[in-house]
Amino acid sequence: MRKIILYIAASLDGYIADKDHGLDWLTVYHGNYGYGEFLTSVDTAISGRTTYDMVVKMGVADPYPELEYYILTHSPEQFTSTEKRIYTAQDPVELVNDLKKKNGKDIFLVGGGKTIGDFLEHGLIDNIILFIVPIILGNGIPLFNKISHSVSFKTESTKKHDDGMMEIRLDKK
Amino acid sequence: MRKIILYIAASLDGYIADKDHGLDWLTVYHGNYGYGEFLTSVDTAISGRTTYDMVVKMGVADPYPELEYYILTHSPEQFTSTEKRIYTAQDPVELVNDLKKKNGKDIFLVGGGKTIGDFLEHGLIDNIILFIVPIILGNGIPLFNKISHSVSFKTESTKKHDDGMMEIRLDKK
Repeated sequence: MRKIILYIAASLDGYIADKDHGLDWLTVYHGNYGYGEFLTSVDTAISGRTTYDMVVKMGVADPYPELEYYILTHSPEQFTSTEKRIYTAQDPVELVNDLKKKNGKDIFLVGGGKTIGDFLEHGLIDNIILFIVPIILGNGIPLFNKISHSVSFKTESTKKHDDGMMEIRLDKK
Repeated sequence: MRKIILYIAASLDGYIADKDHGLDWLTVYHGNYGYGEFLTSVDTAISGRTTYDMVVKMGVADPYPELEYYILTHSPEQFTSTEKRIYTAQDPVELVNDLKKKNGKDIFLVGGGKTIGDFLEHGLIDNIILFIVPIILGNGIPLFNKISHSVSFKTESTKKHDDGMMEIRLDKK
């Protein structure tokens, strides 16, 4: 069955952006880290609306144009959905159930913290591919928000890339 | 020169204990993970007073008896220091300067979050050996408190132990 894969980078202290929403600490790492290969394994993306807007603001006018992209928002009526850009207020559990009923490749969970928390809370994340930058930012936007119960994973692999980027892969237990 | 080594375990979401100060999620991991070898490389330990008391409460009457153990507290007069158990209100920078002037093995920074934050804030951590348990706790006592600036490290190695415990080693940049 199609899997929901959280594929994301964070600092050692678990921030996905610094306190000014900056990513300079991340973008100094120029490696590909298998990103192209990962993108060929998915055909669908999901993120919160804030995260989608942040990616667009960073200059990516149409993020992942080749993917069917679901953008979670409480106010989908405020946005214009297209065939491949679907603004939705659907509950994550229902959305994932619907997507898993269809045939297709795996599904890229892009973020951000709130959406990841909602997905974890409901056991919806099948795999985590986490890139850890060897920096302690001290403050910022957290990768993992607080959730009400713990979620266990199985360690698949760890890797140190040549430039120091760390990569860990985990499967749902 | 003697190094200050933070040697500690945390959940994937960066907690060193769950919200009830519990460690059950950690103690199910029974491996040795080179701990004995690490302990032979140090002759001194440092932790905050709360962390010291927590270790004692967990049933370890005299933690690391073979080490000279500095216990940081604002009220050292409330405690009885011995030759190897030194309660001190000394500033971390001064304490580390004093220790580095003496000959000796490396120095084990035990924790907890506040002490680690103080040490990072002043650039006092030379190496980090971090064990990451593949669990998201959702809440708890954070490993890394907020600090005022970022601190960069160099990735030395990553390792997946047979039972799934992850180990990453970082050096000061």
